[in-house]
Amino acid sequence: MRAASGTARRGEEPRRAPNLDLSLWVRLLESKNLMLGEIRRRIGDASTLPRFDLLANLLREDGQTLAGLSRRMLVTAGNLTGLVDRAERDGVVVRRPDPSDRRLSRVYLTPKGQRLAEELLPAHAKLVSELLSGLDVAERRELRRLLGKLRDSLDRPRRA
Amino acid sequence: MRAASGTARRGEEPRRAPNLDLSLWVRLLESKNLMLGEIRRRIGDASTLPRFDLLANLLREDGQTLAGLSRRMLVTAGNLTGLVDRAERDGVVVRRPDPSDRRLSRVYLTPKGQRLAEELLPAHAKLVSELLSGLDVAERRELRRLLGKLRDSLDRPRRA
Repeated sequence: MRAASGTARRGEEPRRAPNLDLSLWVRLLESKNLMLGEIRRRIGDASTLPRFDLLANLLREDGQTLAGLSRRMLVTAGNLTGLVDRAERDGVVVRRPDPSDRRLSRVYLTPKGQRLAEELLPAHAKLVSELLSGLDVAERRELRRLLGKLRDSLDRPRRA
Repeated sequence: MRAASGTARRGEEPRRAPNLDLSLWVRLLESKNLMLGEIRRRIGDASTLPRFDLLANLLREDGQTLAGLSRRMLVTAGNLTGLVDRAERDGVVVRRPDPSDRRLSRVYLTPKGQRLAEELLPAHAKLVSELLSGLDVAERRELRRLLGKLRDSLDRPRRA
């Protein structure tokens, strides 16, 4: 009855901590910007990186839709179409309609695209490792786990 | 002498773990993209967010140089100039030459810009907190710490 409701929190939002959260978000953006800046500087011109990102994404999971790719990639949905067009023209990816919904188009690596992705990936992986070397293995494991949990929580339909 | 060199590692790179590291980097990008996509969707059109980002950065540290801002922000150095130009025209920031090096220009909030930043920040902070609510406070604290350590390690001049 009445007394029981006294245990309910009043106007508190215990899961929120604005300063901590904003600072976390800023650090996430800064880490990403610093890493990406260094990758751009070392891997080559800006046009190379989105192409690599596309190939690496398809190597991880071939046959993604444009919508799926645009969620995971560095480019906006608008730029993605042009990127896929150019990659298709260069013969490294190919669009094919989804068998069960022909209005939906899926993007696949060609054999040429797959070879290219597998060729580029090691140098990229080595650079990423180098950039992360300020953290020891246990810290990187923990950071990976926390980011995975965050990513999964964001990838679900938003709660009201 | 000879024997002592036997303790040196041969061809090992114990601080590197390519699969862990790439996966960490992908999760960082995905978390950032998912959060930023949601912030863009909720805070308004794409033109609002870079302006807000500029004001929030100056609120944290007023009088930054363009180079400093471009390292920390979501926009490229090229786009930053236009962004600062428009913000200056709207009377929310002002450029002033550095007193000790007049070739260097620093960007400051005007009183109007400061009021605007302080007005926008709470809604932004609330949304960020909401997006991070998939992690509990201890996890967010740990994630913040690890990202801070990563950011600081990246912000130092690169080792050879």
